[in-house]
Amino acid sequence: MPTDTDYCIDLNVDIGEGFGPWRLGQDAAVLEWVTSANIACGCHAGDPDVMAETVQLALAHGVALGAHPSLPDRQGFGRRTMGLAPKELEHLVLYQLGALEAFVRTAGGHLAHVKPHGALYHQAAADPEQAQAIATAVRAFDPSLILIGPPGSALLHAAAAAGLGYACEGFADRRYEPDGTLTPRRHPQSLIQDPAEALSQALRLIVHGEVIARDGTLVKLHVDTLCIHGDSPQAPAYARALRQGLGAQGIGFRPVAGPRARRP
Amino acid sequence: MPTDTDYCIDLNVDIGEGFGPWRLGQDAAVLEWVTSANIACGCHAGDPDVMAETVQLALAHGVALGAHPSLPDRQGFGRRTMGLAPKELEHLVLYQLGALEAFVRTAGGHLAHVKPHGALYHQAAADPEQAQAIATAVRAFDPSLILIGPPGSALLHAAAAAGLGYACEGFADRRYEPDGTLTPRRHPQSLIQDPAEALSQALRLIVHGEVIARDGTLVKLHVDTLCIHGDSPQAPAYARALRQGLGAQGIGFRPVAGPRARRP
Amino acid sequence: MPTDTDYCIDLNVDIGEGFGPWRLGQDAAVLEWVTSANIACGCHAGDPDVMAETVQLALAHGVALGAHPSLPDRQGFGRRTMGLAPKELEHLVLYQLGALEAFVRTAGGHLAHVKPHGALYHQAAADPEQAQAIATAVRAFDPSLILIGPPGSALLHAAAAAGLGYACEGFADRRYEPDGTLTPRRHPQSLIQDPAEALSQALRLIVHGEVIARDGTLVKLHVDTLCIHGDSPQAPAYARALRQGLGAQGIGFRPVAGPRARRP
Amino acid sequence: MPTDTDYCIDLNVDIGEGFGPWRLGQDAAVLEWVTSANIACGCHAGDPDVMAETVQLALAHGVALGAHPSLPDRQGFGRRTMGLAPKELEHLVLYQLGALEAFVRTAGGHLAHVKPHGALYHQAAADPEQAQAIATAVRAFDPSLILIGPPGSALLHAAAAAGLGYACEGFADRRYEPDGTLTPRRHPQSLIQDPAEALSQALRLIVHGEVIARDGTLVKLHVDTLCIHGDSPQAPAYARALRQGLGAQGIGFRPVAGPRARRP
Repeated sequence: MPTDTDYCIDLNVDIGEGFGPWRLGQDAAVLEWVTSANIACGCHAGDPDVMAETVQLALAHGVALGAHPSLPDRQGFGRRTMGLAPKELEHLVLYQLGALEAFVRTAGGHLAHVKPHGALYHQAAADPEQAQAIATAVRAFDPSLILIGPPGSALLHAAAAAGLGYACEGFADRRYEPDGTLTPRRHPQSLIQDPAEALSQALRLIVHGEVIARDGTLVKLHVDTLCIHGDSPQAPAYARALRQGLGAQGIGFRPVAGPRARRP
Repeated sequence: MPTDTDYCIDLNVDIGEGFGPWRLGQDAAVLEWVTSANIACGCHAGDPDVMAETVQLALAHGVALGAHPSLPDRQGFGRRTMGLAPKELEHLVLYQLGALEAFVRTAGGHLAHVKPHGALYHQAAADPEQAQAIATAVRAFDPSLILIGPPGSALLHAAAAAGLGYACEGFADRRYEPDGTLTPRRHPQSLIQDPAEALSQALRLIVHGEVIARDGTLVKLHVDTLCIHGDSPQAPAYARALRQGLGAQGIGFRPVAGPRARRP
Repeated sequence: MPTDTDYCIDLNVDIGEGFGPWRLGQDAAVLEWVTSANIACGCHAGDPDVMAETVQLALAHGVALGAHPSLPDRQGFGRRTMGLAPKELEHLVLYQLGALEAFVRTAGGHLAHVKPHGALYHQAAADPEQAQAIATAVRAFDPSLILIGPPGSALLHAAAAAGLGYACEGFADRRYEPDGTLTPRRHPQSLIQDPAEALSQALRLIVHGEVIARDGTLVKLHVDTLCIHGDSPQAPAYARALRQGLGAQGIGFRPVAGPRARRP
Repeated sequence: MPTDTDYCIDLNVDIGEGFGPWRLGQDAAVLEWVTSANIACGCHAGDPDVMAETVQLALAHGVALGAHPSLPDRQGFGRRTMGLAPKELEHLVLYQLGALEAFVRTAGGHLAHVKPHGALYHQAAADPEQAQAIATAVRAFDPSLILIGPPGSALLHAAAAAGLGYACEGFADRRYEPDGTLTPRRHPQSLIQDPAEALSQALRLIVHGEVIARDGTLVKLHVDTLCIHGDSPQAPAYARALRQGLGAQGIGFRPVAGPRARRP
């Protein structure tokens, strides 16, 4: 059994995804169990009031604060692909980082990381030009920010090339393919619904840097942070079970920022 | 005749008021003749691409950079009143300051002042709660920022109460009422269309701190900066004429920021 | 005790107030108990997908379909005042009526009424110019539409002047002032929280055309339709209790459209 | 030389592409020379005021009125691809048709055709699912509407399959590839800048149903309507030259709607 000093992981969750009169997720309940929060910046979700409130909430829970920038598609919740030119994307990310940082700084905190949202996350994982646009914006804004993305993705390559720290994101409750990518959501086995199996996958990722793919293959996969989906009704219970289950196995919990970030 | 060291004035203009495929005003031409630029922050006008381009343009002209935050009404160009709660307004201004500052800072510049736009300018001039919300946001964001508003307005009172530097804005080409307020635009004599008369009004404001009101009354009115309307086709010619005319009378030109700002 | 043929009332509710990934209210549950539905048109809430889905839902419940147009302020949910020129308001209402009607007509239904939302409802109740702008748009679009507003309001006067049918809206669960207006929400007694008292107020309104004001005064008040607030968790239970309670007293339920509408 | 009764063509232009304080194109000047106008519906451009004004202008010029629906991306002017699900697209088009029709009908006109804008035009030309979603919305809204698209495109196939009339759009000032598609804009020879050559290409398309492709190949290409780009400063002059040049060759001008539309 690992000891606290041997193994540790970050748990991250997307928060602040309301807008105007609408709310999504149970931010306060989930924040009890995570170490990092990715805050919506007003494009797919979030508005100045929601952002102010969310930043306060995250600071009160002592988690690391990150930006969760998105494509400019509120109705589609940033989940629909959009063909932005690299310069457009670079400016769009800068805009969102600045807007969020105003709330973070005036509330007495600081931004620690950046994790793109939804379709932007997927576009940036696969497309080196989009990835580079994001990394360029992040580096220009604050070179101490950590970029979070899928292991081996174009986004993390771009982060490294830009001299940024970065962190590899994994999932306890999603199935993997033999090439280390996630099984697409439309596949019937894409979700791991048994909590024990999810915990087991998380432990294997953290301790051995491995995952058992859908076809039984053992795949090497380094993971620095696990994603907690915040918008399901079960999110707080899932987050607690994962944290308590990992903690019972001696896993420690720390944000990816600072000395834990990977360096190019 | 005044000497350069005796009298000086700031000339400010609103820029970056395009959006997407649309442009407004002749920013580059007007920037030749002013000392301060108020840059739209994405609410009444401006988008991340326009903001990036505008910040570069303003820096290239060596003018002082300011934020021009607005109510969230792009279709109405921020000219329609909106009933925002003070906290909503405070957050809205913070959001815009942060977004703009991201472009300014990464381009190697710094924000020097803030001038609210359109209906927000008028609401903040008259309503102490709205004024205070703006001053609170500006102070939290950066207490070295100068707030620009009408002389004697609630906005400048709030700036002073918040410990912010501030500057009084006047108009060479607008008529004044005996109480020192502008003659409303709907009034047939609200505009001064004779360039010589506008120049004369500017000179009197700068040198004597006075204006001749619509009814002939001589009114004391301190002015630190003159507004150049940037969206008329004549804007560059007007700006040049004013600058050259004032210069010929020995008036100097400097931004309101730094030692020239009024202090509470 | 009144008989079914003697007294009847319309119960109306606002629905379709989601946007993108967000939902508000329990439309399906409340639609079981009402006779008219006011559907958001994409300005304060609603988007093309939400509108299509909501129209289908309302048609499936057999209620009368109405438009619920709003000021263009999604973040503020149409609850913040905005200073629109009458022509702007007229065009804004036309736009929303047309957009909603496309879904209603292609789903095999027809629009029966129009009830402005939030701040627009209040502005139109008090301001004859705003009221007239709305009535002008509604009349141009379809002169058979019924306008719903507060009894005695500028909105209903404008409807009558435009030759439109109209209906007076009342509240079972809101307190009234001696002048027949609603006690403002900020007042501690503005809400009637005892279901029996709400039912009693509804009955008195329907049968006697009277309400007991906050100070005990008996006020004449004609009401054609009662508003069910759809966005509280208790909305379905409240709607059912009101409908069943009124039904037990022999009150009938019918939409305001058709022969029941008031005519100028 | 053809006689008026032998050959005729429609000239169409996109209009109403302003928003809020911004304008694009010289609608009134170009409308002098065309027979059909495609009016922005509030998504890539247009707002209720612009739409009202534009519909009046088009009616005053006696041209056929069409809808110019778009993807929901105002900042990108509808020119950036977006991954909408077919149902989302169907609802989006319905919404825009309804909104525009409200202005057209209340102004005493009627909608005659639909031409998708920008990226939607290109997506619908190539993707049968997107094409079918548009055709489904148009058919449900009004089966007498004519769909305009590229000859041989998925959009026109979907129109035919839905039982809609349709019309093939060609360009006098764009170069064609041997397969009948347009030479991409990034290609140095994509534009035909010599007015005589553009006129000659238009004549050949109208009279012979042919075009000489970039490599000299003669390609069969049926065209019912020629697109006039409205947003260049030269648009009015180009439209006039094309109309007068074609007219001098005996070509007649009529909208595609009515008996001239192709039928499935």
